[in-house]
Amino acid sequence: MAASNQKGAAAIAANANAPPLLDLTIDNITPNTIRINSQSNNARLTYVMARLVTHLHDFARETRLSTDEWMASLQFLIACGQICSDVRNEFILLSDVLGLSLLVDNINHPKPPLGTEGSVLGPFHTHDAPVLANGSSMTSDPDGEPMLAVCTVKDTQGKPIAGVTIDIWETDSSGHYDVQHADRDAPSERCVMVSDDQGRFWFKGLKPVSYPIPHDGPVGKLLERLNRHCWRPAHVHFMFSKDGWDKLVTALYLRGDPYETSDAVFGVKQSLVIDLDKVDKETAEKYGVQEGSWLLKHDFVLTTQEETEKLRDQLAVEALEKLGLRLKLVDHLPVPDLD
Amino acid sequence: MAASNQKGAAAIAANANAPPLLDLTIDNITPNTIRINSQSNNARLTYVMARLVTHLHDFARETRLSTDEWMASLQFLIACGQICSDVRNEFILLSDVLGLSLLVDNINHPKPPLGTEGSVLGPFHTHDAPVLANGSSMTSDPDGEPMLAVCTVKDTQGKPIAGVTIDIWETDSSGHYDVQHADRDAPSERCVMVSDDQGRFWFKGLKPVSYPIPHDGPVGKLLERLNRHCWRPAHVHFMFSKDGWDKLVTALYLRGDPYETSDAVFGVKQSLVIDLDKVDKETAEKYGVQEGSWLLKHDFVLTTQEETEKLRDQLAVEALEKLGLRLKLVDHLPVPDLD
Repeated sequence: MAASNQKGAAAIAANANAPPLLDLTIDNITPNTIRINSQSNNARLTYVMARLVTHLHDFARETRLSTDEWMASLQFLIACGQICSDVRNEFILLSDVLGLSLLVDNINHPKPPLGTEGSVLGPFHTHDAPVLANGSSMTSDPDGEPMLAVCTVKDTQGKPIAGVTIDIWETDSSGHYDVQHADRDAPSERCVMVSDDQGRFWFKGLKPVSYPIPHDGPVGKLLERLNRHCWRPAHVHFMFSKDGWDKLVTALYLRGDPYETSDAVFGVKQSLVIDLDKVDKETAEKYGVQEGSWLLKHDFVLTTQEETEKLRDQLAVEALEKLGLRLKLVDHLPVPDLD
Repeated sequence: MAASNQKGAAAIAANANAPPLLDLTIDNITPNTIRINSQSNNARLTYVMARLVTHLHDFARETRLSTDEWMASLQFLIACGQICSDVRNEFILLSDVLGLSLLVDNINHPKPPLGTEGSVLGPFHTHDAPVLANGSSMTSDPDGEPMLAVCTVKDTQGKPIAGVTIDIWETDSSGHYDVQHADRDAPSERCVMVSDDQGRFWFKGLKPVSYPIPHDGPVGKLLERLNRHCWRPAHVHFMFSKDGWDKLVTALYLRGDPYETSDAVFGVKQSLVIDLDKVDKETAEKYGVQEGSWLLKHDFVLTTQEETEKLRDQLAVEALEKLGLRLKLVDHLPVPDLD
């Protein structure tokens, strides 16, 4: 390489790992790209990039991806990025409809038999929901069917967990989250609660309804081309956080929903499908709601961060062995085992 | 499934291919996603989506992708999309630095021995370049080193091809394309020419310089994390189009450039590395340029669309057989061979 006072050239010349990149072909582009990406001293980044490049290139080779398809894919990604805003995340939606979100949740949050299962986060969680006291109403929609939710959060031994932060969000009666309304000026149908010393939390919301995921953007167009519907069964989202406990992102689904077994984002698990009751007289008086309105009762079970990590590590080691990959876990994440 | 008058449910209920999507796991999410994506009657789309989902899921399984890494990836994609504009395409840049662009070009434009090889399109081609008459100057930069380019475009038998449209673009002397200047009000260092009846085209430009690809965005940050430099060796882009001829996207690179063997986007091929001459007295008079200025002479060779398609099909069939995939070509693109 010619002498150069340009910093980049000096850096690359100094790195003996860098292969000469010239006359790259369908057959040798992958190992060369992996080698040039392996200069960071971050073993995890190197491994993730190597797998990414391998799969990306294999995809192109197996499909003999055409130039037009390549360009259309890039345009699709641009469109996804450009429609994103503070309150719209088209890439989460894309991940959801491709089954990636469900997969990543399953990998990261394995549950021992007693723990409440997870579900997809979806693109509609926000960080501006108000913290409400137990018993508050989180809806400003006069048209929905009122629903009282009375829940607990406990550990796998049945012991209540106090001080758990619970994010709760659902659509309004029209099947839209607040952020989907152009004139949104304040959060609605969402709140943050904290479990009391008996692990309880309760609030007034709406009976959830089935709704289509946003289908006016590129992901909606993709579903249409795939002849897939864009509906999700009625559900309420819950996210539980407390130091020392595995973060639980989940949802409860209403039994009998027409989309119970065809959720566009693959989120439904049988253990999360529930029946609503009706509020009886005593409950109505106790919680200050109308007798005969809907009642959601549910007991959530958290697992400790420690037991989840242990289970996740164990499942990772088993899965990677099954895949024939020689890896070790560093900070709970696989990297090549070069020893 | 419960009766429903909702269009989506009716459509899905009517489709016997749709699997019940419930309790999906790390192990069964992939076949289920593929099945739900297989309802379009478009065999090519079904195949491409199946390979995409398989690779995406395998990537997550092999890396045990963490929730934080997943979210960081989505944020990265959003950032790429949001920085795109009419004159900036961060996803082409991403495809370039991951070696995908080079791979897709190689797959789609195989060259018989005599044909000029292709190179990456890059993100800087525009559609507003002026059509200039032979001999025109395409630069408005007073600071660069003037270069006369005298070229021909011929077929593999050496016969001139008239009426070929040639897009030509390069950076200015500062290493920036016109679109990288915020105050760009007209195209510069770019033009469109048409070959004359002897297959000739000639123009006045600048001796190209090495330059960094845009590194103020997410792709630049990625390269930095990977400890990769962001430089490209000095080159001029050419794109040749004429009905009946395989579209040729290529570039000529200057021999001896410090980045000749470390191009950040893998575009260099030895057959595209050239030496510049100096303009002699006779040439200076003929073309109206200064004696002693730089001279680029090159003969480009196009292949017919027919011979390229034939070669591409043949290479595709061979490669897919080698991969053990049972596919057939429909419209020159692989789809599963179910017969």
